Amino acid sequence: MYFEDIPLGGKITLGSFNFTEENIIAFARQFDPQPFHLDAAAAVNGPYGGLIASGWHTAAVWMKLMVANRRASEAMDGDVSQEDYLSPGTREMRWHLPVRPGLTLTYTTEAFNKRDWPSQPRLGLLQSRNEARGPDEKLYYSFISQVFIIRKPK
Amino acid sequence: MYFEDIPLGGKITLGSFNFTEENIIAFARQFDPQPFHLDAAAAVNGPYGGLIASGWHTAAVWMKLMVANRRASEAMDGDVSQEDYLSPGTREMRWHLPVRPGLTLTYTTEAFNKRDWPSQPRLGLLQSRNEARGPDEKLYYSFISQVFIIRKPK
Repeated sequence: MYFEDIPLGGKITLGSFNFTEENIIAFARQFDPQPFHLDAAAAVNGPYGGLIASGWHTAAVWMKLMVANRRASEAMDGDVSQEDYLSPGTREMRWHLPVRPGLTLTYTTEAFNKRDWPSQPRLGLLQSRNEARGPDEKLYYSFISQVFIIRKPK
Repeated sequence: MYFEDIPLGGKITLGSFNFTEENIIAFARQFDPQPFHLDAAAAVNGPYGGLIASGWHTAAVWMKLMVANRRASEAMDGDVSQEDYLSPGTREMRWHLPVRPGLTLTYTTEAFNKRDWPSQPRLGLLQSRNEARGPDEKLYYSFISQVFIIRKPK
């Protein structure tokens, strides 16, 4: 899909991920070894009354689901050279509620804006709202992604 | 350190991390299995001409270094209850240059703003600019962190 072909609006479900004690702890050991991410017994007496997932784990799972959906790095499928390396990055990453073992989050993405980028006439910038919600529809995590997408060759 | 005790300005070095082919691929297998993160041979013919780290890997390493520096979740050392769960999240995460195997990035943090948060009078919001730079001082990654910190009890 080229930039021109991408519709705005409409939530797309990327998939779901079950956070378990095992995968929460495995992530924490590598990147966020705080007691409330690392040790279910110690976490009982911690600030959350139990184990919760690292916010960076919740974030990385989004990428995993994007790749599984072949929605990652659309621009990279083109011929963006090393010198052209560009990443507009993310905005407003927010963790709204603690993610506990056993919770399944469903991640969605919804494109809401397209922008020209004068210095990169072959690319357009797609901004999307991304959310991760629990089975009760409560919002646990959200952020705005910004991705460059190849335009239709003229 | 209470909110009141934290000085603004002054870059603090959190530490350095060496990205290797091994740890780049290990992260990619879990969270970002795109060919240019996953397979050095396949990546040669990809858009970057070689393997590069997932941006979410670069991001997660910041958390690892924050925890190692005991600068993580200052508010969590207090008595923030589950009901009080709050995370103002991050702003403006940006990946400026591709991170290749063998690169060592040094992460710094610099507090630049303190804000009151009327709904949480026991906490203050600390905003910091975070950067990861290479040995040549080139900027590879940056974002603004926002963390609630416990105020000095009155």
